[in-house]
Amino acid sequence: MSEELRTVWWEQGAVCLIDQLRLPHEQLVVRCEDVATVAKAIKTMQVRGAPAIGCTAAYGMALAALVSPAADVVALLADLETAKVFLDSQRPTAVNLAWATERVLAKARQLGPEVDGPRALAEALLEEAHAVLTEDLAMCHAIGDHGAPLIPAGGRVLTHCNAGGLATAGYGTALAPMRSAFAQGRSIHVWVDETRPFLQGARLTAWELHQSGIPLTLITDNMAGYMMKSGKVDCVIVGADRIVANGDTANKIGTYSLAILARFHGIPFYVAAPTSTIDLSMEHGDLIPIEERSSDEVTHLAGQLIAPVGVNAAHPAFDVTPAELITGIITERGVVTPPFVPGLRRVKEGA
Amino acid sequence: MSEELRTVWWEQGAVCLIDQLRLPHEQLVVRCEDVATVAKAIKTMQVRGAPAIGCTAAYGMALAALVSPAADVVALLADLETAKVFLDSQRPTAVNLAWATERVLAKARQLGPEVDGPRALAEALLEEAHAVLTEDLAMCHAIGDHGAPLIPAGGRVLTHCNAGGLATAGYGTALAPMRSAFAQGRSIHVWVDETRPFLQGARLTAWELHQSGIPLTLITDNMAGYMMKSGKVDCVIVGADRIVANGDTANKIGTYSLAILARFHGIPFYVAAPTSTIDLSMEHGDLIPIEERSSDEVTHLAGQLIAPVGVNAAHPAFDVTPAELITGIITERGVVTPPFVPGLRRVKEGA
Repeated sequence: MSEELRTVWWEQGAVCLIDQLRLPHEQLVVRCEDVATVAKAIKTMQVRGAPAIGCTAAYGMALAALVSPAADVVALLADLETAKVFLDSQRPTAVNLAWATERVLAKARQLGPEVDGPRALAEALLEEAHAVLTEDLAMCHAIGDHGAPLIPAGGRVLTHCNAGGLATAGYGTALAPMRSAFAQGRSIHVWVDETRPFLQGARLTAWELHQSGIPLTLITDNMAGYMMKSGKVDCVIVGADRIVANGDTANKIGTYSLAILARFHGIPFYVAAPTSTIDLSMEHGDLIPIEERSSDEVTHLAGQLIAPVGVNAAHPAFDVTPAELITGIITERGVVTPPFVPGLRRVKEGA
Repeated sequence: MSEELRTVWWEQGAVCLIDQLRLPHEQLVVRCEDVATVAKAIKTMQVRGAPAIGCTAAYGMALAALVSPAADVVALLADLETAKVFLDSQRPTAVNLAWATERVLAKARQLGPEVDGPRALAEALLEEAHAVLTEDLAMCHAIGDHGAPLIPAGGRVLTHCNAGGLATAGYGTALAPMRSAFAQGRSIHVWVDETRPFLQGARLTAWELHQSGIPLTLITDNMAGYMMKSGKVDCVIVGADRIVANGDTANKIGTYSLAILARFHGIPFYVAAPTSTIDLSMEHGDLIPIEERSSDEVTHLAGQLIAPVGVNAAHPAFDVTPAELITGIITERGVVTPPFVPGLRRVKEGA
């Protein structure tokens, strides 16, 4: 087994990240010593993937506390409220962002009356951020354990975007079942959708699977149907940005199309995500806000214009896959199969 | 109405072409004053698309006649035989290329005994080349006339790759119904799939629609399902590389997935192509050989490496859409709807 990948970590008073915008050609570390740099890393997608954003945001809150000039705990709490609003505003669709900032803020509110001043509170919040990361890694391994047995004997899994180690603290969600099956010595082959416009599949998933020695073949997104028809795909496993109460799932644009293609070909379609991704407050997927990103990301590649000047492009960053198209949802607390409403409630509430 | 797009034309003793390798960033005209330059334009794909190659080759033969130093008709016919072999060898698999050169050569053989010397013969052959182009434009306009009424009232059409004016003498096949509807003053909006890996949609279709003033929005291939679900697509129209006897259709990779998505959403899915694309000798689509191209075309985008070094990629260049997923096939002789077997035979044989 190769050494485990680290996506985000705390080091000497700074939040450190692998700059995912530079992968796969350069492996650079971004050092964030203030909240603005953390926010920028989230917004510009130097760090991306809901759990990794959650870990980053938790550390961002700890950093906000550590660098705050607040003279007392009340002032620090006010600074943290401000930091939360600021961090949350960077990526509206990812539920883990607000979840992580809320967790740290709640801890601050809880500990505030007890601790010996703002510095002590800040140190406690750093411990809370560390806990977010440790729990994230444990969560990913649990998803791997639950998901690996679902991969059919052929072992040929198609995935989209990057719900891998780079999207988490280091092991992945959608990639976790493949990593676990591979670690168990099973034959695994991953079809990696390149995932336009940002190419998270080509740049990140291909990179981390290749680093881990897991066999893969890169394809353009429009080849998935052909591969399924050719009998070369045994199942699809993707990540999720938000799973709502009825099982409807928001994920990277293109996921919805894949789910339709899988259904058409009778291929199981799984979503792998931590229970933190489940949002029971939302009844169905039509309520999920879809982030519309800049059309420049479609018309350009690495700064190079690939379309005619003056042409409009659309860029919905996510789509919503209806629950009816999902075979099962793999969480760290087990696999949820239809009916999703009670199943998701059970894993979410740990009941 | 904007001026009509010209892909290839005759001007003051030269074959002129839009250099499609430079699109969309530069609009350069290649002026071919000798046969070698025509051959190079075909070989290097400055001109591409079977009908456009045919027109270019016909003019290439006329040019060969006009620049020939032959003192008599017999010598000129010998020069034309040489020119045909030379032109045909540039893209050996392009059926329209050999078809067009043969047509001009046959005309030369037919007129040779009657005309008043080599100059008169050359002038007659230029008329024949003009006829090839005129007939191609008429074919495209007929496809447009037959196809325009099929576009639902909303006028929002999704297309893939480039089966446009740039692939023909200037009006297109899949784009013809949109052009005709637009010329009739109807509200038209085209969703243009960028069409990875070669980006024919982003580079060529977006460019020519923009030039013609037809509203468009560029999307990545994986956005099509989302746009359909959002109720923003009224129909899909694509081109074809080969249509076999039962209606199964080979076209650019990604077409098959689009057809499944259209079916899932209850959206009409049309193929537009000249009857020359219909191959009645093949019974069904499983018999169509699928060209596997270099994986470098997937791991690179616009000349830049986008995947990690050492990663494998697949590159099937085409896929086959089964007839069951096709609503209708728009030809210059009318629209064929199921059952396709008798319908295709009728239009192909002009019966």
